[in-house]
Amino acid sequence: MEKKVLVETSARHVHLSQEHIEALFGKGYQLTHKKDLSQPGQFACEERVDLIGPKGTITNVLILGPARPASQVEVSATDARSLGIKAPIRESGDVAGSGACTIAVGDKSVECAEGVIVAKRHIHMTPDDAEKYGLVDKQIVEVKVTSDDRTLTFGDVVVRVNPAFALAMHIDTDESNAALCKPGTMGVIL
Amino acid sequence: MEKKVLVETSARHVHLSQEHIEALFGKGYQLTHKKDLSQPGQFACEERVDLIGPKGTITNVLILGPARPASQVEVSATDARSLGIKAPIRESGDVAGSGACTIAVGDKSVECAEGVIVAKRHIHMTPDDAEKYGLVDKQIVEVKVTSDDRTLTFGDVVVRVNPAFALAMHIDTDESNAALCKPGTMGVIL
Repeated sequence: MEKKVLVETSARHVHLSQEHIEALFGKGYQLTHKKDLSQPGQFACEERVDLIGPKGTITNVLILGPARPASQVEVSATDARSLGIKAPIRESGDVAGSGACTIAVGDKSVECAEGVIVAKRHIHMTPDDAEKYGLVDKQIVEVKVTSDDRTLTFGDVVVRVNPAFALAMHIDTDESNAALCKPGTMGVIL
Repeated sequence: MEKKVLVETSARHVHLSQEHIEALFGKGYQLTHKKDLSQPGQFACEERVDLIGPKGTITNVLILGPARPASQVEVSATDARSLGIKAPIRESGDVAGSGACTIAVGDKSVECAEGVIVAKRHIHMTPDDAEKYGLVDKQIVEVKVTSDDRTLTFGDVVVRVNPAFALAMHIDTDESNAALCKPGTMGVIL
């Protein structure tokens, strides 16, 4: 059986703590739900922020809800370079000692001493998916993506198993461009 | 024998025709040699240009010399998106029907109706290298790059054989970031 997985490209985005949401948008503010994402409970927000680093600014960056215990900024390595930030490759939530930046909305801003990462490529799946594919949580796999001019096999792909997940591989825009991914591109777990 | 190859990252750059050099810098102008590149006869120039597309501008872009019969702009897919240009994956020199952009220096500019490409990944080698590795010109190979968190195998890599070449694989910044390449990173031809 070919172990197929939908490959989704994560554009740069931020997850904000409620403290940071209130510092940027006002006391008691709730983010506005715009669109559900593939992972259940996750959503894109109407609100946008600017990311400011020592070398540059990226405007109009997506916020993903709901609020999290700590703010986290996920950028591509290309973005990190243009911002002038050293952002390590990390799994979501593993932000200790990661990159620093300023998050701004209009004239309000918050300083993140850490939280800027380049997301480690990963596959979300349910325990049923994992059993069907013969995989376990935290397993490292390879995924081949076949395209017209940029066929590529990603190594170091982390499998993440949780009943609340939906089956999808997440890569950043650099990785997506390197494999010429398009909406609907499927990968095969080797 | 492991078929090793140095992996070099090509940052965005332009090659200019003499006509465009003169339109941008003045009649009879010669580009200023700054630094030799790994490929014999190719060099980085002191002069820089801006690239202007429908959605954005990228400033301070490297010019590679010497002058070529036709101008060619090599960007990453990330760059193409920020410029708002549709740039196909192409081998150098194959620019028919490729992307359009404006190249500017101060208040002078030239319109390129075509010439903007995302370079197809490739390996330069001499006939001696090719014989040693058992490869031929235009052969498509796979190259594995091992890194700490982003090991990756590039498919669709074109071998280009010419006595004037030096052995090196060239990838763009998106591809380099996807594999976490650093100066001196070596790939293995599979």
